[in-house]
Amino acid sequence: VSYKQKIEQIAKDKQSRIVLALDFPYQRRENRQDLLSKAQNIIDAVSPYICAVKINHHLTLPLGIFDGVQKIITQVHNAGLLAIMDGKVNDIGATNQTIAEYYFEAGFDALIANPFIGWTEGLKPLFETAIKSQPQRGIILLAYMSHKGAIEGYGQTIKDPQTGALTKQYLAFAQKALAFNADGVVVGATVPDKINEIYRLLNEKVPIYSPGVGAQGGTPEEALKAGSQYLIVGREIIQAQNPAEQAFKLAKLKLEK
Amino acid sequence: VSYKQKIEQIAKDKQSRIVLALDFPYQRRENRQDLLSKAQNIIDAVSPYICAVKINHHLTLPLGIFDGVQKIITQVHNAGLLAIMDGKVNDIGATNQTIAEYYFEAGFDALIANPFIGWTEGLKPLFETAIKSQPQRGIILLAYMSHKGAIEGYGQTIKDPQTGALTKQYLAFAQKALAFNADGVVVGATVPDKINEIYRLLNEKVPIYSPGVGAQGGTPEEALKAGSQYLIVGREIIQAQNPAEQAFKLAKLKLEK
Repeated sequence: VSYKQKIEQIAKDKQSRIVLALDFPYQRRENRQDLLSKAQNIIDAVSPYICAVKINHHLTLPLGIFDGVQKIITQVHNAGLLAIMDGKVNDIGATNQTIAEYYFEAGFDALIANPFIGWTEGLKPLFETAIKSQPQRGIILLAYMSHKGAIEGYGQTIKDPQTGALTKQYLAFAQKALAFNADGVVVGATVPDKINEIYRLLNEKVPIYSPGVGAQGGTPEEALKAGSQYLIVGREIIQAQNPAEQAFKLAKLKLEK
Repeated sequence: VSYKQKIEQIAKDKQSRIVLALDFPYQRRENRQDLLSKAQNIIDAVSPYICAVKINHHLTLPLGIFDGVQKIITQVHNAGLLAIMDGKVNDIGATNQTIAEYYFEAGFDALIANPFIGWTEGLKPLFETAIKSQPQRGIILLAYMSHKGAIEGYGQTIKDPQTGALTKQYLAFAQKALAFNADGVVVGATVPDKINEIYRLLNEKVPIYSPGVGAQGGTPEEALKAGSQYLIVGREIIQAQNPAEQAFKLAKLKLEK
């Protein structure tokens, strides 16, 4: 069973397509133990209303992947959820493989990577490492990020190396995701028009994950309407007065589509 | 004093422009303690012949940045060298800032980032975090990586958003490095023609760091001749029968230029 099939099943069973992002800001050394308990408490509170948890360097750097983070992954799995590492991997192949081996050993079910690095000696060893892992892991590719500067890279116009025609970088990335059989693409909720363009290109063969809801200005309704299959939500849930209620509300949105 | 000035001074004092890359492959849990002693032994052996040490996820993931890696950074500093984190940072601004704050707290003197993320809400908070740190830290930008797949991204043709003219991605990145006053750019030793193009564009205002010597097929002589100011060397030194002698030889190459 692939990661893509697993998360699809969990989303159906739990009636939620919300991925909780545990993106806490920098904490001084003296407050660092709080980070782990904060993460654990929020997962306890919202786990009935989400399908996966996304972890990034906000937690791996202060807690360590074989220390605090592994405890979080165990909690995530015990709650019947999946754990995604938002590493935005973009190194040479041998390094990508090493990175993936450590993250997968720590228990992550999927890893986010940047297709900008290309296939040969880039993404290829990463996909191979994910596929040969027991259980098989997933690779999710960035297609268009949620911040303003994304227009400089993801939004730039490039010359298609095959046809010579001008095209958009994010469309080329979505095409790579299809060709490489990626388990998902990330498109910011802040750019619903681009979600829709990519959705039509992918034709539901590769699901779209959208961060940037709330704090960054994207609305969940627009992202879902445009074609996002999973909403990645951090501050909007974590900083809510009642995180569980907020997660439930967001999960329900999708079902009403 | 900026990071760029500091490394320049150390390179002159030590008569070496070699950056040691501690890129060890994945190690199983039972061999992990070896990683730290391996790293420490190699630094002890070669520190007279290098100017800096580059660390990547090969060590941060298994050892943790506030555990084993911080010990390595202390050793690097005690030897009068600088420590570069090859994080290839490519996230949204708030995350980049958090990443930088943790790496800088651990003691890293410079951080490598991918200019593909753009300036607003991307690189800007990263540069600001580096500049306001005490002591000031450096940001080095990727311009062309050393692996084959780099041609898909770094080597692609893009439309310049200002002039509308077609140009190369790596030249646009080098121009950003100049505009943002980066402390360096990374250009693979495997593409000496591109090193030279970028060298002429940067006009020695931003130094070029070149990985990919040896195992990946680049030759140090060609990279230096094309304009690289620093050679990033891993396997070629680590796996040598006599790492110190190998580092000394490579350092001498540059002086003979």
